[in-house]
Amino acid sequence: MNPLKHRVKQLGNQLEEIAQRGLDRHVRLGVTGISGAGKTAFITSLVNQLLHGESQLLPAWQVMEQQRFLGARIARQPDLTLQPFDYTGALDCLQQTPPSWPPSTRTISEIRLALRYLPEKGLAGQIGRPVTLYLDIIDYPGEWLLDLPLLQQSFDQWSDAIWQQLQRPAWKTQTQSWCARVAALSSDETDGVIAEVARDYASLLQTLKRECGASLLQPGRALLPGELAGAPVLEWFPLPPAMRSSLAEDSPLIQRLTERYSAYCDQVVKPFFRHYFARLDRQVVLVDCLTALNQGRDQVEQLSHTLQALSHSFHYGPGSTLGRLFRPKIDRVLFAATKADHVTVDQHHNLLQLMHNLMKGSRRQPRYFGTRMETLVLSAINATRQGQVERSGSTVAVISGQSLDGESCVRFPGEVPTQLPERQFWQQQGFRFRPFSPPVCEAGSALPHMRLDYALQFLLGDKMR
Amino acid sequence: MNPLKHRVKQLGNQLEEIAQRGLDRHVRLGVTGISGAGKTAFITSLVNQLLHGESQLLPAWQVMEQQRFLGARIARQPDLTLQPFDYTGALDCLQQTPPSWPPSTRTISEIRLALRYLPEKGLAGQIGRPVTLYLDIIDYPGEWLLDLPLLQQSFDQWSDAIWQQLQRPAWKTQTQSWCARVAALSSDETDGVIAEVARDYASLLQTLKRECGASLLQPGRALLPGELAGAPVLEWFPLPPAMRSSLAEDSPLIQRLTERYSAYCDQVVKPFFRHYFARLDRQVVLVDCLTALNQGRDQVEQLSHTLQALSHSFHYGPGSTLGRLFRPKIDRVLFAATKADHVTVDQHHNLLQLMHNLMKGSRRQPRYFGTRMETLVLSAINATRQGQVERSGSTVAVISGQSLDGESCVRFPGEVPTQLPERQFWQQQGFRFRPFSPPVCEAGSALPHMRLDYALQFLLGDKMR
Repeated sequence: MNPLKHRVKQLGNQLEEIAQRGLDRHVRLGVTGISGAGKTAFITSLVNQLLHGESQLLPAWQVMEQQRFLGARIARQPDLTLQPFDYTGALDCLQQTPPSWPPSTRTISEIRLALRYLPEKGLAGQIGRPVTLYLDIIDYPGEWLLDLPLLQQSFDQWSDAIWQQLQRPAWKTQTQSWCARVAALSSDETDGVIAEVARDYASLLQTLKRECGASLLQPGRALLPGELAGAPVLEWFPLPPAMRSSLAEDSPLIQRLTERYSAYCDQVVKPFFRHYFARLDRQVVLVDCLTALNQGRDQVEQLSHTLQALSHSFHYGPGSTLGRLFRPKIDRVLFAATKADHVTVDQHHNLLQLMHNLMKGSRRQPRYFGTRMETLVLSAINATRQGQVERSGSTVAVISGQSLDGESCVRFPGEVPTQLPERQFWQQQGFRFRPFSPPVCEAGSALPHMRLDYALQFLLGDKMR
Repeated sequence: MNPLKHRVKQLGNQLEEIAQRGLDRHVRLGVTGISGAGKTAFITSLVNQLLHGESQLLPAWQVMEQQRFLGARIARQPDLTLQPFDYTGALDCLQQTPPSWPPSTRTISEIRLALRYLPEKGLAGQIGRPVTLYLDIIDYPGEWLLDLPLLQQSFDQWSDAIWQQLQRPAWKTQTQSWCARVAALSSDETDGVIAEVARDYASLLQTLKRECGASLLQPGRALLPGELAGAPVLEWFPLPPAMRSSLAEDSPLIQRLTERYSAYCDQVVKPFFRHYFARLDRQVVLVDCLTALNQGRDQVEQLSHTLQALSHSFHYGPGSTLGRLFRPKIDRVLFAATKADHVTVDQHHNLLQLMHNLMKGSRRQPRYFGTRMETLVLSAINATRQGQVERSGSTVAVISGQSLDGESCVRFPGEVPTQLPERQFWQQQGFRFRPFSPPVCEAGSALPHMRLDYALQFLLGDKMR
């Protein structure tokens, strides 16, 4: 090739590259949920589906159904100071013999995928020119979102609300000794004592989470402190209202706690919303209703409060504190009821209804402010097979799989209620939606799932037209 | 008292308070040193001396000698997101039976003291009106300062310099297998392989530190990663110069490493200098020459390089990168040779000379730029008693104390060289300046020390006139 032709070709390539880069798009997708909801399984399976890109497994995703999806690869993550989401490690767990569920993550992590596809209509009629959508998946603890209300409350308001919560009869056994200790504090306790009481408060929250299924616990970082462990910014706790009014407002104890509460809001909560939350475009919130049902009425009520609080994070109409402080731009939120493979398919509708009822009014408001909120029942990694058995002459829907200790089993998990059952019901019986081992996953094939394609269509469909 | 008089008195009190507040001063004192130099012992003893405030123990500190020091107390630390320096914990270690050295810290921590004193001359002739000096002590790893040169180097320059360092004959045993592995990397290694090689590089640095007494190791966070463990911003390492020139500049491997090197400079090194270093007023650098002498010639040479690099952090004349980027305002730096109680008093002068010689020219330059640099030999917590024994008719200076395993012992530690001894010397003999257990410290009395009062006078004397 003569030099001139070569230069022209080079120039042509460069122009093409620039034009293509102009077409490239970015979507930042947040994935959250209260720990145990299955964030790691969800992200692992989502990445797995995208990397495999098998159209017959993702029929409800338009770009796939229209055969415009060309493939995906893991790209370099943009924020190098974040932990990378450990996709390979998670997949290794699922593909070992016997397979195991990947360990859950305890902090924020990130993975970037480059999705290559053909747009429906190209720029200036250039049909069929492939473009790339960069999808950043940001995985963060739901506990961090639940700190949002602190920004709208004074220490006194927060303290009164939490103190009342700690008096719930169901929690009495766990909370009473800590509460008694706080009530006996004097107005001029040393920082050492305050630090100790704060540490005990953090352990109390852990206990409530573990033993009572509590999830609306504040401050969120008391549960997952990371590098802040031991720093005074975490050393505060609620006081009994009676004590707050008997102590002078300038008592050292109240001053100390108030000051730290403010520091937590300014130096921990706000930076998270500013640096991460406000930069998200789309959000998935994973909800595990079945485990709450297993635990009892109180836990389902807790979940309901938590869901309402979580969805409140997406209510940022003009004039709201959140909207004013951080200008979030999330325009689609998916609340997904997970672990749908723990029940028979005919119960999925009930599960969806239950989630709707637990979310109450909070589900509808965001649309009014320009955010679309969708709900879905899904299984990120399907660990069971659906079946039927004859029982006393009638046909009963069942699921089969491997129990957590590796035994093959056929289960009739029963009905999912469409709303919180009455108190009477819990006295007579409860629920038992039991977990399964992961399915045996072969290295070359995509993970089995339920309705991840619906999730992809809602989250990315409009971005890949 | 009638209401008017009461109001006037109130107003008077308020004015007095405002006037006093105007007189209050703040000093932010950085304390650093390569880990093992004794930062925790130094800060613990400094705080202890200030809290006890016994004038006969701190004669060289003017405010004490002139009986103007009124007392000190621990005040609330200003930055609530930092770990508090654990003074009580450290003191507990020293005061238990048998006493033990407090564990060393691995991250940044902070403690604030309020020092109450009478100024030499009060405002408007108000002699004798007490004022408060707030002293913030910020303890941080010297390894973080040693990352400063990265800001002035490209990845290529850094890589070449470090690669050469890794080829030192004394380090060959430790470095050769890692170096061979890097040399065999191809230009398009996966992120997984890069992460693995980076992890091995971090272990190699740990080994060099532990076994070869190396201290000028980069990146500093590879040794103390904290919350960055696992993040790509730490996943880079040097390449052999031959490899750098044989690979194309746009080879994925070189691009990846260069990109992360830049991210480390921008997102890890710069924030430390901006948020912490640039806000310091005074700095102490602790130097453990005796342990290096025990280890050998190579280690003393290493220490010399490290000292020069450390002191370079205080050379920020107009036009320097450091001065331009961060505008540091440290105007006094104390390089203190620690563990002076491991040798007899007659050797202190030699120890000082040795430190001067190891620092070479780097000791003098800062004064030119408006920073005063001072050197001192001290013992933060004196664990030995000085004595004399008769030996073959002559008197020999000795020290006595408890060995680390609790035995009473009398030692003749020998001479400290005034400069790096010749190679020949090391072949014939070495040094053995052995550590001691902490002295038995009674709860009510101040810790024994050597020359902390000189340190206080240099660091705070002018601020407490």
